[in-house]
Amino acid sequence: MIHVALLGYGTVGSGVAEIIEKNCKELSERCSDEVEVKYILDLRDFPGDPNENKVVHDISIIENDPEIDIAVEAMGGIGKAYEFTKALLSRSVSVCTSNKAVVAEYGVELLKIAKENHCSYLFEASVGGGIPILRPLKDCLGAERIEGITGILNGTTNYMLTKMDEEGCEYDAVLKEAQAKGYAEQNPEADVCGHDACRKIAILSSLAMGKTVNYKNVHTEGITNIGKNDFEYAKKLNCSIKLLGLSRDIDGKCLAIVAPFMVSKDSPLYGVRGVFNGIMVKGNMVGDTLFYGQGAGKLATASAIVSDIVECANNKGKTIECPWKDEDVEFVPDEKKKFEYFIRVKREDLNKISECIGVKDTVSIDSLNDEIGVVSEKVSEVKFYEMKNRFEGSIVNFVRFL
Amino acid sequence: MIHVALLGYGTVGSGVAEIIEKNCKELSERCSDEVEVKYILDLRDFPGDPNENKVVHDISIIENDPEIDIAVEAMGGIGKAYEFTKALLSRSVSVCTSNKAVVAEYGVELLKIAKENHCSYLFEASVGGGIPILRPLKDCLGAERIEGITGILNGTTNYMLTKMDEEGCEYDAVLKEAQAKGYAEQNPEADVCGHDACRKIAILSSLAMGKTVNYKNVHTEGITNIGKNDFEYAKKLNCSIKLLGLSRDIDGKCLAIVAPFMVSKDSPLYGVRGVFNGIMVKGNMVGDTLFYGQGAGKLATASAIVSDIVECANNKGKTIECPWKDEDVEFVPDEKKKFEYFIRVKREDLNKISECIGVKDTVSIDSLNDEIGVVSEKVSEVKFYEMKNRFEGSIVNFVRFL
Repeated sequence: MIHVALLGYGTVGSGVAEIIEKNCKELSERCSDEVEVKYILDLRDFPGDPNENKVVHDISIIENDPEIDIAVEAMGGIGKAYEFTKALLSRSVSVCTSNKAVVAEYGVELLKIAKENHCSYLFEASVGGGIPILRPLKDCLGAERIEGITGILNGTTNYMLTKMDEEGCEYDAVLKEAQAKGYAEQNPEADVCGHDACRKIAILSSLAMGKTVNYKNVHTEGITNIGKNDFEYAKKLNCSIKLLGLSRDIDGKCLAIVAPFMVSKDSPLYGVRGVFNGIMVKGNMVGDTLFYGQGAGKLATASAIVSDIVECANNKGKTIECPWKDEDVEFVPDEKKKFEYFIRVKREDLNKISECIGVKDTVSIDSLNDEIGVVSEKVSEVKFYEMKNRFEGSIVNFVRFL
Repeated sequence: MIHVALLGYGTVGSGVAEIIEKNCKELSERCSDEVEVKYILDLRDFPGDPNENKVVHDISIIENDPEIDIAVEAMGGIGKAYEFTKALLSRSVSVCTSNKAVVAEYGVELLKIAKENHCSYLFEASVGGGIPILRPLKDCLGAERIEGITGILNGTTNYMLTKMDEEGCEYDAVLKEAQAKGYAEQNPEADVCGHDACRKIAILSSLAMGKTVNYKNVHTEGITNIGKNDFEYAKKLNCSIKLLGLSRDIDGKCLAIVAPFMVSKDSPLYGVRGVFNGIMVKGNMVGDTLFYGQGAGKLATASAIVSDIVECANNKGKTIECPWKDEDVEFVPDEKKKFEYFIRVKREDLNKISECIGVKDTVSIDSLNDEIGVVSEKVSEVKFYEMKNRFEGSIVNFVRFL
């Protein structure tokens, strides 16, 4: 019997319990043993729940039970989640989690503790929900040097942007609808400001580059400035606007950014709509591969956690290796970060802008007479922001091109 | 040092050599040892090739060298490829291959021989080229019961169908162009008649269902009947036509088919265009996930083989488990295989057809006055073919709906 402890019995934790129960036949085959939830740690009680009698309120019960092989950290937050994970790994209990905040902040330290204690720290569910992405990155693309990752990593914002694109809605209306449907939190900041996507691209890049890509150093912009008119321009350019987490390995240095991007119809990411996630991985031999699916939701996220449980069960007493070394990655300096920009400019100021940066093309919208859309040549972040600060009043909005 | 023997030095074999050389740094890290090609078995010599001195013409040199850990079977064909694979596995040499014909025909037997000899038989490259798909199916979706697989598995036909869709070309013209570009063989039968996709869906389904899905029992239609007019109708229905390999687990029985399908714009497979492959896997918990990338080509296919080499190197002396048991799957009988059909019917015979099967909708094309397109209700394969045989002269063409 493989005994599992669930830390947290909210959406994800209860999803894990549900899958362990529903797919018990498949799981016992794949683990060559039965899998059972022995404890559920939560502050609450769950009277009437079939797992009611497994609920405990004290982590030390789990820590001190030598039968526990694997724990699922699905508490959310950072403080206690980190503390309990560390304590369990130190006692050779493998931990599987969906908690991207803890992974982005403490991942490399927790991997080290796991290794010292011959157990594993796995976090497939922290990125891309139910989409297998970390394991493919680590194992399946084993022949590749990963040159870049480009992902629609946040379902909430992708839902909102898709609505704006397809139905011509404004930001506020779409946010309200997303909140009403439960896709966005009442405080939507983590999603709409890009913080969630930022942690995810940091985790992906750390695995791809083998060194810590500190999320604090990833330039992050949200979608709060994006409106109906930006999509009007996007359509004229055969594009849609997507919030992307993007990273590139440039001669061993990391270029990473989270921001809204113009994505052309030709890109496989263009078709990733609604709450779905899509993650494009570029290998130096295989070219682009795309992984697509449900990036969030109870059972999708829980499925990724249970796949980690299966791997832990099949590697008892061993550490499942992770290519993320305890060393900080060097970032590409801003002078060398270059993008093409789409810039909405006040019509009378077009000359000022085009004296500053190369203009490849312009595009106009009938209903917006007093402005013009500019497609810039490739320009460094330094040069762009210099220009932007200098002509603050002339620029209505901007979006980078993928 | 990990010593590899390449059987066959054609496109794929030489691609494997190229990746082992170019990504040697990444590979030695991931295998914790250097990887080197020691022999290349081929009937030809390769004067001037950097690997010239590794070429041998006699398999017994490889069989009798105890240093060889892993062999790559990239010979193509069946006879010798099967024979050499068997001989090497019997001597505890792991074999990695892209040869779908051998895998579909002898996979389960070769897996058994590998297991008896504590080595592995891996074939990630046999399906989906460079797209990681078999390993995700086996390992990454470890929490799931796989309910279905739907794949664009053949790049040649997808290139041809995309051309027909986008440029309104006819079949013969597109085939000629594909041959000129090297995407289609001079004898294109294996691709255009669906045989290639048939073997691939058989392999995928065998892994998903854990039992042999014999490719000979998979109903297979090609794209040779598909023309410009079919795409005219498809557009009216907001669809494109794709050659799909499709399988479903229906209460433990297998429904498998290869045929052209109407694929709606809402499907993630709609956007899989040109030579690309896309494979959608439906898990009972996670829902649909899609894996997308280059389904063929020298380096993409070789990349998948090298990822298998890495896995073999990390599992020396052990067998990498494969959930494909030596037991034939039971197929869903034709009476229970049901699809919606699109049927082009001679206008004067519409009544005869609609008396036979339920008609949900009709659609007309201006330039085709004497026929009408019928969207049928769900109908069993038995009933459909009964109708088709009875009214042979009334039916211009048909395509199933996904």
